Amino acid sequence: MFGNRLEDAVRSVPGASAIIIMGFDGIPVDSYGEPKEVEIETAGMEFSVVMREVRKTAEQLEAGSAEEVLLRTDRLAAVLRVVSEQYFVALTLDKGGSIGKARYVLRTLAPALRSELF
Amino acid sequence: MFGNRLEDAVRSVPGASAIIIMGFDGIPVDSYGEPKEVEIETAGMEFSVVMREVRKTAEQLEAGSAEEVLLRTDRLAAVLRVVSEQYFVALTLDKGGSIGKARYVLRTLAPALRSELF
Repeated sequence: MFGNRLEDAVRSVPGASAIIIMGFDGIPVDSYGEPKEVEIETAGMEFSVVMREVRKTAEQLEAGSAEEVLLRTDRLAAVLRVVSEQYFVALTLDKGGSIGKARYVLRTLAPALRSELF
Repeated sequence: MFGNRLEDAVRSVPGASAIIIMGFDGIPVDSYGEPKEVEIETAGMEFSVVMREVRKTAEQLEAGSAEEVLLRTDRLAAVLRVVSEQYFVALTLDKGGSIGKARYVLRTLAPALRSELF
């Protein structure tokens, strides 16, 4: 459905391994690529739990609407970006991948996905 | 306890409003400054919920140890960095604050805090 856009996003970010469009309800919409050692849909479901928690935190702090989350472990990173009330997009990177480029690419990708998701 | 280090960190990051050392259990250790419209200790407690969730996610994905989390809403941002098994440090920024500089400052601050927390 979003194949080319997703593939282009992964290819344009050094160290990126996969991308997935997820519902906040934990249901995947579309994806491209696979991170090492984990299925992207499994990762996406876990990310949706984090996203719901972050959204709740933003509400409780009256800190505005959640827009972006970055998670980094000693092995990989993921940049999550809200697309709409219902959806977010997550891009995974291997250790040393370009987090700055990933943030930039998702910032430009999110509005394009939003217009296609409705 | 960590007064100067914390104040220095806030002052060295453009747009930073506050910093707090938190236990993963939600108990604050020390802080400096206040974000707009919210108490830093309240924010810290919410961040600890997010951090526990991220740590759980990293475990479930077998993705290594959580090291860093960035949260951004349309009004503010926060960079969270793991200090040790028990503690993390969170720096809050107003909209437009330098997230890159915040990440850098916490990367250098975390090891210094770790050695003081034990």
